[in-house]
Amino acid sequence: MPLQLRSIVRAGGELELSLAEVPMPEPKADEVLVRIEAAPMNPSDLMVLFGMADMSTAKASGTADRPVVTATVPPRMLPAVAGRLGESVPVGYEGAGVVVGAGSSPAAQALLGNTVGVIGGAMYSQYCAVNVAQCLPLPEGTTAAEGASWFVNPLTSLGMIETMKREGHAALVHTAAASNLGQMLNKVCLKDGIGLANIVRKPEHETLLRELGAKFVCNSTSPTFMDDLTNALAETGATLAFDAIGGGKLAGQILMAMEAAVNRTAKQYNRYGSTVHKQVYIYGSLDRGATEFTRGFGMTWGMGGWLLFPFLQKVGAAEVERLKQRVASELKTTFASHYTREVSMVEALQLDAIAAYRKASTGEKYLVNPNKDLG
Amino acid sequence: MPLQLRSIVRAGGELELSLAEVPMPEPKADEVLVRIEAAPMNPSDLMVLFGMADMSTAKASGTADRPVVTATVPPRMLPAVAGRLGESVPVGYEGAGVVVGAGSSPAAQALLGNTVGVIGGAMYSQYCAVNVAQCLPLPEGTTAAEGASWFVNPLTSLGMIETMKREGHAALVHTAAASNLGQMLNKVCLKDGIGLANIVRKPEHETLLRELGAKFVCNSTSPTFMDDLTNALAETGATLAFDAIGGGKLAGQILMAMEAAVNRTAKQYNRYGSTVHKQVYIYGSLDRGATEFTRGFGMTWGMGGWLLFPFLQKVGAAEVERLKQRVASELKTTFASHYTREVSMVEALQLDAIAAYRKASTGEKYLVNPNKDLG
Repeated sequence: MPLQLRSIVRAGGELELSLAEVPMPEPKADEVLVRIEAAPMNPSDLMVLFGMADMSTAKASGTADRPVVTATVPPRMLPAVAGRLGESVPVGYEGAGVVVGAGSSPAAQALLGNTVGVIGGAMYSQYCAVNVAQCLPLPEGTTAAEGASWFVNPLTSLGMIETMKREGHAALVHTAAASNLGQMLNKVCLKDGIGLANIVRKPEHETLLRELGAKFVCNSTSPTFMDDLTNALAETGATLAFDAIGGGKLAGQILMAMEAAVNRTAKQYNRYGSTVHKQVYIYGSLDRGATEFTRGFGMTWGMGGWLLFPFLQKVGAAEVERLKQRVASELKTTFASHYTREVSMVEALQLDAIAAYRKASTGEKYLVNPNKDLG
Repeated sequence: MPLQLRSIVRAGGELELSLAEVPMPEPKADEVLVRIEAAPMNPSDLMVLFGMADMSTAKASGTADRPVVTATVPPRMLPAVAGRLGESVPVGYEGAGVVVGAGSSPAAQALLGNTVGVIGGAMYSQYCAVNVAQCLPLPEGTTAAEGASWFVNPLTSLGMIETMKREGHAALVHTAAASNLGQMLNKVCLKDGIGLANIVRKPEHETLLRELGAKFVCNSTSPTFMDDLTNALAETGATLAFDAIGGGKLAGQILMAMEAAVNRTAKQYNRYGSTVHKQVYIYGSLDRGATEFTRGFGMTWGMGGWLLFPFLQKVGAAEVERLKQRVASELKTTFASHYTREVSMVEALQLDAIAAYRKASTGEKYLVNPNKDLG
């Protein structure tokens, strides 16, 4: 029976990660059976995998080919996982592999033998049955590893740019800009000629982005940060930011710098601030602490949550298809992803591997090959 | 020469309030000359009047019929008034009076002798010339005092309700809900059958609003506040709040309570929180401190500034006219305002009066009659 990686948080707060033997999925008429050969470990996958557990309490047990990892979810975090208590959940949102079986529909049959990108929720599995609508046939000569991260980061970066256009902004600000997603957004913006002000926290990330061609990189730990950012915003005209940090003062600082940049060319004083709409969308929570801002940026501003899936629903199927086709055609260039290491599911459940990939530090990313060593 | 109240902040940071003699305005073709008989002191007027000065430093000088008040603007507040330094500005956004002169156009001539509500920026003046488009002819039998507050609070409360409808929300939350505006919003919501969760900070304001028929009144200083608010939100279905406070934790608490209320009837667990959009518009700054919130309300939320004038621009002239006509027809009922005291411009420049009206404490509101004692 094929293996599937599972995560369960028991009512008492114990997290257990293990490999379950599951029946070989049988594709329905509109489904294909995919042998998954590559699935990235995205931050959102790690959230599901670790279920808010304190991984400093992690313990290994089980056997060499059926490892088990347990850890404790702190009581104060239990409400956040209340909806999944006691449920053994599969993990892995996106991946790629080879279609080894197909349902009766022509659309499904047409994919037999193809290497496809897939989305679902159980990509850390040897085999998945998914609807053809959840597949993207990869161009000739593209490997599963090259196509594994075809959905989340590419569509998020394109979604940010599309949001910018739809909401009438001219350029973008991005925080935690040296992340995998940030590097990708930088590539798309360079290619499409869109102004991008990158915000990072480390000198080496400044260097990294500049080497990737970024024109505007501001370090939020620098004493000249507010001036640097205001200059970048004045030059790019960016009035929309996507913030992966969430907590702390950064989101408010961005609005302050936007207001200052806009007011550099203001024709007249307005006691309610500039009438240019300034927006920060918080799409991540690298800092889980409180968001804090003084409202020194006038009255024409917004802050809010942003998620890929509501965005995709809003723009509709035809637009999503257009974005997917763009990703397919640029998988080896604009949307290429890089991984620190490719691991089997057994290797993914080793404590040293967990310690490495759960840091999710910038540039560190693991790729799971659920069929590695299981030939 | 007619008198006009003036406020100036000098470059060194000295605020000076005084009465200036100004030429009698001459109405252009489309303008009317209005003898102003009533003009409220709204919080936004007080901002212009006091120009960020520390009024505990206020000193009286001048003569009995030409009083002068001076005070110091703290250096740290000077940037906020940089745009008006050295300029002697008139004050008073809205008011009402009698049309005593008119330009040549038929529209202007038609208003001669009428009592009209007026907007402009110099209502603390004996006479103003304003375009006919800035006038609202008051219904027969309505006094200037009854019509003075015809614009800011009535259109703000109607604007909040219209925003609610346009953005797809079912009911409202309002903070500082015992204010003049809050009482008015409560009346409109009761009349129109719109759910309203009122948030106040004092027991006497709870009583006040309940006596005015409010069904949901929550005291943010009560230990049961979050439960009370969540219950009110579950009952009303309110997912939109207008917040006059701005600083502190209240805006975030409202989003938390909205999320909790929505999740009471949630069919399934969603790790990104409910998919119902929850919005808080900050339209005031009674607390000028930092806004602070933990993001425990999922990803489908927004916070932002809200102002009456951009709203009116957005909805367009025909809709504004419809709203104005509603105000005119309900000036003595739904949109009736109450004042603590009616003062002349000379009385408005007495230190004891300033101490009273600048507190702008709930329910305290002064009405200026620029022609009082000057007949």
